[in-house]
Amino acid sequence: VTPPGIVTLTTDFGTADGYAGALKGAVLARLPSARLVDLSHDLAPGDVAAASHLLARAAPLFPPGTVHVAVVDPGVGTARRGLALRAGGQLFVGPDNGIFAGVLEALGEPPVVHALESRSLWRAPVSPVFHGRDVFAPVAAHLAGGGELAQVGPALAPGDLVRLAAPVPSPVAGGMRGEVVHVDRFGNLVTNLCASEGAEASVEVAGRRLPLSRTYADVAPGALVAVVGSSGRVEIALRDGSAAAHLERGAGLVVTLRPPRESG
Amino acid sequence: VTPPGIVTLTTDFGTADGYAGALKGAVLARLPSARLVDLSHDLAPGDVAAASHLLARAAPLFPPGTVHVAVVDPGVGTARRGLALRAGGQLFVGPDNGIFAGVLEALGEPPVVHALESRSLWRAPVSPVFHGRDVFAPVAAHLAGGGELAQVGPALAPGDLVRLAAPVPSPVAGGMRGEVVHVDRFGNLVTNLCASEGAEASVEVAGRRLPLSRTYADVAPGALVAVVGSSGRVEIALRDGSAAAHLERGAGLVVTLRPPRESG
Amino acid sequence: VTPPGIVTLTTDFGTADGYAGALKGAVLARLPSARLVDLSHDLAPGDVAAASHLLARAAPLFPPGTVHVAVVDPGVGTARRGLALRAGGQLFVGPDNGIFAGVLEALGEPPVVHALESRSLWRAPVSPVFHGRDVFAPVAAHLAGGGELAQVGPALAPGDLVRLAAPVPSPVAGGMRGEVVHVDRFGNLVTNLCASEGAEASVEVAGRRLPLSRTYADVAPGALVAVVGSSGRVEIALRDGSAAAHLERGAGLVVTLRPPRESG
Repeated sequence: VTPPGIVTLTTDFGTADGYAGALKGAVLARLPSARLVDLSHDLAPGDVAAASHLLARAAPLFPPGTVHVAVVDPGVGTARRGLALRAGGQLFVGPDNGIFAGVLEALGEPPVVHALESRSLWRAPVSPVFHGRDVFAPVAAHLAGGGELAQVGPALAPGDLVRLAAPVPSPVAGGMRGEVVHVDRFGNLVTNLCASEGAEASVEVAGRRLPLSRTYADVAPGALVAVVGSSGRVEIALRDGSAAAHLERGAGLVVTLRPPRESG
Repeated sequence: VTPPGIVTLTTDFGTADGYAGALKGAVLARLPSARLVDLSHDLAPGDVAAASHLLARAAPLFPPGTVHVAVVDPGVGTARRGLALRAGGQLFVGPDNGIFAGVLEALGEPPVVHALESRSLWRAPVSPVFHGRDVFAPVAAHLAGGGELAQVGPALAPGDLVRLAAPVPSPVAGGMRGEVVHVDRFGNLVTNLCASEGAEASVEVAGRRLPLSRTYADVAPGALVAVVGSSGRVEIALRDGSAAAHLERGAGLVVTLRPPRESG
Repeated sequence: VTPPGIVTLTTDFGTADGYAGALKGAVLARLPSARLVDLSHDLAPGDVAAASHLLARAAPLFPPGTVHVAVVDPGVGTARRGLALRAGGQLFVGPDNGIFAGVLEALGEPPVVHALESRSLWRAPVSPVFHGRDVFAPVAAHLAGGGELAQVGPALAPGDLVRLAAPVPSPVAGGMRGEVVHVDRFGNLVTNLCASEGAEASVEVAGRRLPLSRTYADVAPGALVAVVGSSGRVEIALRDGSAAAHLERGAGLVVTLRPPRESG
């Protein structure tokens, strides 16, 4: 199968300084036919968890053979490894710092993992402060052009990858207790509690009990609403506003999922 | 004619949460050869009027057959319809909430409108909170790949579209009175008053009377200047600064266009 | 050689107002096969020096024949010239206001320069406030499609280009004194002092003396560190934080590069 030549980019570089542009140039220099797709350059500096969250939400939708480069890399230039992985038909290139934890969990399939050691694929010399440009970009171009994963370096056991500490929900009397793990641009509070769209349930948050609704506009403007978000996680929103601002809370807020409140 | 396969994206998603990335993946999954073009993901949450303004300015310039997906959609999951339109050689996909009002006025040609009802074109299941990913993106891919507009669902009369309430200028003694309808990134105050580039006129705003100038640098640094903007609307700018900050005003500020002040 | 059809875009337009979208549409209208690459639309309004810095860092990496359009253009519509240049295998289109100073210095090769005068290549009519859309975009499409540079207008001597005033380092007793010329998104203070990666040196800044380290994580979290940045300039960073915020300083801060402190 010919890969589609698509290379997505996820960084905390912003765009104004030229680092994201350099990353793009370095991919195209090696594979002028590559088709670049920005996922984000606006992640908070060093926020590996946010990058992991973004990739989990977006990467699985892309066509097979897409190469996803992710560079949130505060440990650049140290002994931390560079990785290239294949999982669920997608390819990933970036640092071994947990950045792929979310998407690997979302894809639910053990990845094939290789460490980046084949310096012949890299730009030379390699700047110790910009592996995105000098290591990850050319390796991504190699893979997007149909190069073998095994050529990037030796195989690693998936269990050897660095993990991200992520809170997990726990059962409580009559329900499941989780917490807010992400606040999105709309001020929606995204939790780590899974639910099926259409499930009957109620959600306890900040002293309130909300029925699980179908969509944001199922409540009046200005009211809190709990829905199943588009990635299957329970989230708390405020219709036409920001739940995070309204509740003055964010990541870490406890949320409990319970059976629907009994009528009577 | 083969469509160019170009799909533009206009949303209020930001990029950091992965929603824009998911939209891109959903287009490419259905049409791997699609050529994505970001118009903006930085619109204020829920600001349908800003999306309408952006599309009016940018969309008419694209080559025929371009598909413009616009998702500012606070009513997602409710009874609001999804639409696909063709006008001026361009195609548009998004919610029926007025988001296409500006571009349809700019194109000045009655559109061919269809409601999105052909679920076979959509992703399944459809999340009630993310029609961008599950409905609009795959329909856009269908159209960008050369699929028929009529296949997306039944035709609608253009007059049945939801409209945006937009202020219209009114004649006053010796002139035309309009108002500021948009403040851009430079702090320029864009009005709803049309004028031809090169017209001789004067502009009254905030107690001042300014001649209609040709370009920003026709006045001294720090001075207010009225020009005909690049979309043919009168705008008030401050050379090398922000007129909005200088006047401490924005949308709604009254602006009157008059004949040139008589010399005397 | 067939050019790759890549057109990069660098502006201070933001994306929310539709100016960047109009620029993209104007390129694609003339060359539907063009492959657009955003470098940045987030430069501070009117910040020509920041655009120059960005292009210096990013543009040299792109494949030969790439066309870079740069529009930070506070003098739009005045007598300032428009330019198209070729240097180092790359092509550049934009205003003659110093915006290409950094990249021409980085490429280190005299450019071939032409003034934009061939109105037949432009959109008509030309708005005096938006040469990006009406002049630079169609000229870029001409070049990206393989059109001749000489067709855009008459040749200019490189020495006739408008220059940017840029501070230059000066020798001092036992070292070289420069200054911070750019603060990046991470709060790193980028200087105009060049050094080779791996050089032994020490850096004086704000009353401190720091050894030149290899990478950010060579010091403890929260400590200042001096490294050679990815474009070969000395920069001052704070591990896991912002040096600019920590020192409460930015552009203009004096930094002196000296031989390594003698042990003793």
